[in-house]
Amino acid sequence: MTKTPLQYNQSAGKKVHRIEAISDGVFAIAMTLLILDIRLPVNELIHTDADLWHALGQLLPKLVSYFLSFMTLGIFWVGHSMQFNYIHESDRNLTWISIFFLMLVSLIPFTTALLSEYIHLKLAITIYWLNILLMGVVIYIHWSYAYRKHYITVPEGSDEQTVDLMVRRRVIIAQSLYAAGMLLCFINTYLSIAVIVLVQLNYAFAIISKRPARK
Amino acid sequence: MTKTPLQYNQSAGKKVHRIEAISDGVFAIAMTLLILDIRLPVNELIHTDADLWHALGQLLPKLVSYFLSFMTLGIFWVGHSMQFNYIHESDRNLTWISIFFLMLVSLIPFTTALLSEYIHLKLAITIYWLNILLMGVVIYIHWSYAYRKHYITVPEGSDEQTVDLMVRRRVIIAQSLYAAGMLLCFINTYLSIAVIVLVQLNYAFAIISKRPARK
Amino acid sequence: MTKTPLQYNQSAGKKVHRIEAISDGVFAIAMTLLILDIRLPVNELIHTDADLWHALGQLLPKLVSYFLSFMTLGIFWVGHSMQFNYIHESDRNLTWISIFFLMLVSLIPFTTALLSEYIHLKLAITIYWLNILLMGVVIYIHWSYAYRKHYITVPEGSDEQTVDLMVRRRVIIAQSLYAAGMLLCFINTYLSIAVIVLVQLNYAFAIISKRPARK
Amino acid sequence: MTKTPLQYNQSAGKKVHRIEAISDGVFAIAMTLLILDIRLPVNELIHTDADLWHALGQLLPKLVSYFLSFMTLGIFWVGHSMQFNYIHESDRNLTWISIFFLMLVSLIPFTTALLSEYIHLKLAITIYWLNILLMGVVIYIHWSYAYRKHYITVPEGSDEQTVDLMVRRRVIIAQSLYAAGMLLCFINTYLSIAVIVLVQLNYAFAIISKRPARK
Repeated sequence: MTKTPLQYNQSAGKKVHRIEAISDGVFAIAMTLLILDIRLPVNELIHTDADLWHALGQLLPKLVSYFLSFMTLGIFWVGHSMQFNYIHESDRNLTWISIFFLMLVSLIPFTTALLSEYIHLKLAITIYWLNILLMGVVIYIHWSYAYRKHYITVPEGSDEQTVDLMVRRRVIIAQSLYAAGMLLCFINTYLSIAVIVLVQLNYAFAIISKRPARK
Repeated sequence: MTKTPLQYNQSAGKKVHRIEAISDGVFAIAMTLLILDIRLPVNELIHTDADLWHALGQLLPKLVSYFLSFMTLGIFWVGHSMQFNYIHESDRNLTWISIFFLMLVSLIPFTTALLSEYIHLKLAITIYWLNILLMGVVIYIHWSYAYRKHYITVPEGSDEQTVDLMVRRRVIIAQSLYAAGMLLCFINTYLSIAVIVLVQLNYAFAIISKRPARK
Repeated sequence: MTKTPLQYNQSAGKKVHRIEAISDGVFAIAMTLLILDIRLPVNELIHTDADLWHALGQLLPKLVSYFLSFMTLGIFWVGHSMQFNYIHESDRNLTWISIFFLMLVSLIPFTTALLSEYIHLKLAITIYWLNILLMGVVIYIHWSYAYRKHYITVPEGSDEQTVDLMVRRRVIIAQSLYAAGMLLCFINTYLSIAVIVLVQLNYAFAIISKRPARK
Repeated sequence: MTKTPLQYNQSAGKKVHRIEAISDGVFAIAMTLLILDIRLPVNELIHTDADLWHALGQLLPKLVSYFLSFMTLGIFWVGHSMQFNYIHESDRNLTWISIFFLMLVSLIPFTTALLSEYIHLKLAITIYWLNILLMGVVIYIHWSYAYRKHYITVPEGSDEQTVDLMVRRRVIIAQSLYAAGMLLCFINTYLSIAVIVLVQLNYAFAIISKRPARK
């Protein structure tokens, strides 16, 4: 009948809704901060529509990066919130894995700015890709930990193993495609980015596939 | 009795409350970031109230733009959250339509800054209007998709067709008015903005109509 | 048995939790943006602790403004969320009153920066006070409208009139004190700010009153 | 049968979920604003990967500070939301203690920037540590107040005293370690920061302890 002292680890981070709320907040802010990198052309020489058109044309690489990173964040947000469709319990460790994940999410505006400024340099793409890779690794660990601790609840009609397989496979396939796209930067950095954009559009625009393919 | 493998598409984005949360976040940030464009007059020559009054007078176009865009965001936020009064189920595609919508919402601080800086140029108004138009298109697609997939639940006493008609009609009428306002910029850009502001006030200040008119 | 067409006004903004969420977002961002006005002393001449101490001393007016505005936002956030303790229903008009309220909330970082930069000018204090006054007016209208439309639900043991009186009285007393403080700027602007800070501390630190006085 | 007039103090801030929401918002923004301090190396002389690598190397102190402060915020967020696992009721005073806590949270991006810019100065570390100390003091007061007012509900199988002891002990131990780390700056400022980072990693990476130690 001895009662062991209550461990902090047991009581911290039990409320799943709090980690969901702070995640939504960090994602929303990271997404919106991206626009701050697209600075208005303030040019004393802009007097006509043609001048402005020309000035905006020079912002194109920034707009592509904006689009790219918004989609990256969208993909990971969908992945993260999808995991929480199944995770109904949490502990301090799972909370901290999420916090490390959010730390990487917050870095995206920085690595995006780096990419859009130095789009012709391999190092810029490599750092951007490392950011995405680490996000993939941490979100994979997040799921594995939750699964191992039996924090997963699946709806009627599906079983845990199937859900588990689906989640893991998705992270691995996505990261493989990112890695392949990144390796192309040794041939051409623009090609590399184009492929990464296509990978992401494929994820988002499963929207056009009436009969979703097996993934 | 074969069980098809669980599709990622079926499990992602089911929680409507998450997409509501991230939308509220993005709207809140976009609204608040607008103020960052109104930079304080830091003028070594400001020593008296009259100096400050004069300096603030020069911020007027920025304040008008701030007001304009805050209302734009307010209108679309009301429209978006109104749709979720009826949408009680979601899937990955609907989530992605919302993410693209939020991408356009995040652009508003940029296109607003463009408008307030180059208020005399047709191109600036055109880009601002394109932003609004695309938001209208995506929010229309959002509703159409949800309706087609039967994710809509209407309260007792009203029927789906009536709600559907109301939502669609509203988007189309609003966008028609925006387009009309925008076309006026070929006559005069200030007139164009004045009309857009009036269209928005009409939406917000249905507040003063005791007996709401049929729309 | 004719069914009138569903009015947009009847269906928009019914979800009280959405307006609560976007309000919390705007307040949180406005509060946090205040710190962006306190810029780091980047001085090539800072080499010792004494240099840094001196440089930080010059930030003091900014820190006072930060404290002042954080409390202002805190007071209005408490007031706004307190109203929603009683408001359990909403309509489009009430939602728009809240959006106009949030527009004024978002202005606070700007008017605060103005105040901290031109603390010796009457106009800066007047504009800051106008911001607070308008927030008071709009939050008063917000309550009146909700009360008139019978959206108020009071807990067991209290009655609507008492709650109504309490809410209205509070706004009026607070605004009277702000106005009195503001008028002091015709004597001395620093005195004016000191009184406003004291008024706010009085609100927050009802914390130290064991037996809360009748208000 | 006299009914005392309803006190504002009794009705304000009753909704725990609102203070949770604004806290999540402020934490999310403070965390994400940290990245704004890491400015892109915009150097006309950067033409090769080696140039960029060198430029990024100079950002290292900023990245360490980013990591440090993200963890600090993570730790306090976990602490704050852990308290709300037990606090199921609130009043105006508790709400205001939280608002003061959030005021200190919002200061973190500023004190972090100060630390990363003047990492070699004792004053910069002292201010950073004061920020953390005050957060500890306020969060301790927060718990004490809630406990004294009987706003705490503990789950079945644990008792209030045990929970109370755990929460208090944790704050005190953490703050003792922070203080010890801070005092090391009189020997060497870099050592001081290294120890603070280690203290934080110890908190976060209880993750690796299979059998959580008594704390």
